[in-house]
Amino acid sequence: MKTTSTINQLRKKRESLTDPLGLVPTMGYLHDGHLSLVRQAKMECESVVVSIFVNPTQFSATEDLSSYPRDLDRDLELLKQEGVDLVWIPTVEEMYPPNFQTWVTVERLTSFLEGRSRPEHFRGVTTVVAKLFNAVLPQRAYFGQKDAQQSIVVRQMVRDLNMPIEIVVCPTVREPDGLAMSSRNSYLNHEERKAAVVLYRALAQAAHHFAEGERDSERIRQAMLEILTNEPLAEIDYVSIADLETLDEIQGEIDKALLSMAVKIGPTRLIDNVILGNR
Amino acid sequence: MKTTSTINQLRKKRESLTDPLGLVPTMGYLHDGHLSLVRQAKMECESVVVSIFVNPTQFSATEDLSSYPRDLDRDLELLKQEGVDLVWIPTVEEMYPPNFQTWVTVERLTSFLEGRSRPEHFRGVTTVVAKLFNAVLPQRAYFGQKDAQQSIVVRQMVRDLNMPIEIVVCPTVREPDGLAMSSRNSYLNHEERKAAVVLYRALAQAAHHFAEGERDSERIRQAMLEILTNEPLAEIDYVSIADLETLDEIQGEIDKALLSMAVKIGPTRLIDNVILGNR
Repeated sequence: MKTTSTINQLRKKRESLTDPLGLVPTMGYLHDGHLSLVRQAKMECESVVVSIFVNPTQFSATEDLSSYPRDLDRDLELLKQEGVDLVWIPTVEEMYPPNFQTWVTVERLTSFLEGRSRPEHFRGVTTVVAKLFNAVLPQRAYFGQKDAQQSIVVRQMVRDLNMPIEIVVCPTVREPDGLAMSSRNSYLNHEERKAAVVLYRALAQAAHHFAEGERDSERIRQAMLEILTNEPLAEIDYVSIADLETLDEIQGEIDKALLSMAVKIGPTRLIDNVILGNR
Repeated sequence: MKTTSTINQLRKKRESLTDPLGLVPTMGYLHDGHLSLVRQAKMECESVVVSIFVNPTQFSATEDLSSYPRDLDRDLELLKQEGVDLVWIPTVEEMYPPNFQTWVTVERLTSFLEGRSRPEHFRGVTTVVAKLFNAVLPQRAYFGQKDAQQSIVVRQMVRDLNMPIEIVVCPTVREPDGLAMSSRNSYLNHEERKAAVVLYRALAQAAHHFAEGERDSERIRQAMLEILTNEPLAEIDYVSIADLETLDEIQGEIDKALLSMAVKIGPTRLIDNVILGNR
């Protein structure tokens, strides 16, 4: 497995990799969710590149950029075991040189959900993803369903800007109790970790109601809120039942929907989602 | 010479074209300025694609989108004579489908000059150029020095977003009396056409002073303003002496500089520029 930090080196090493090439963009501190993306890419592509970059422009000033967990040695060992061809670990200085001033912005889709709670977050995401795509030139790029809105926003960017890249979204990988895997789970203390399963419990309950025939969005929303408010350590940021394509909030009858939520468990903000109905 | 309108067709035809490929993005109504870009591309590249697209998002509501001159048959005949391989003529509907919502924005450089007079103009330019680049996948793209700020902004976008494309800027092509060629020159009546040479006269006078040893930006600025204000049909939008890279306005001594101006001749807004000093 090769590793590289500069874009020039990356481009040289990219030349010797066979197409179709799959890119798995990550912020490191890898867990089984990331590795499932790598495995999917390995199955579908001739070569696989993983990028590890804790992208500062998607964190706000009050967020956890400086404390975001990192363990590069462990990450590289895991990726080596998966048979990844090349790991790109750019520096902040090379990605954002002093005179950097170009942004890729997806407008409407980023006004909801995470975009409402985290202004400028998606501007940072789409800008860095565009940079990763242009530097690596993959045929496919792999994202996790856990960051549902991110995948939807990146797909919109790819479509709007005519990028010749297929976005592949892979299922959320969960802990045995249902908690969605996330690098940020490492922030949770023992008590918080137990409480954190409440996100999954609320979503699973909603999915259960839907499977049993419930279609009223307000009753499903209330069922989720009830479970969440019964957890003393949980502080709700948002609970949403949204159209899968436009992310408009659904009132009344649900045909298919993205159920998603952001909940603080102690100081740690977690997100999770499920899809109701057939896509 | 092949022509195509849809992106899917373009991509198929692109596959049979040899690299390096040069792209010449145009809004049609071609003149010798455009053709000089095509010739430069022909000299440096194995294949040449020209796009013709009057991009609505770079016009403001009060500008000349609907009256912008068009003559596709003539354009195609000219490009055929130049030995262009493929002409892409996308429709507005395909470039901007109803749900379109992604923008590429270069910030600081677009706050000056044309960007100050035409808010959102460059957002439209950089977005459509990113789309053209992603659809055509050229190794080189050719722009005219006449739109000096445009070239500088596109170069910044390419650098910031890591696009694997070389931006080639070709000299301004002028009429015998010095007027910079522009599709918008067709708006000028006989009297206005005669008056329009005043832009070049002012720039040439400034270049002459500089060549004779004048380095004081205020005196050079005044020399240009004097010539322009002596032309009754000319209404000055801006006259600028700016840093070639940052586009900051230069006060005091000039080492090298972009002299640029926008001047209305009757109802028609014209721009022109020269570079002082060695780049």
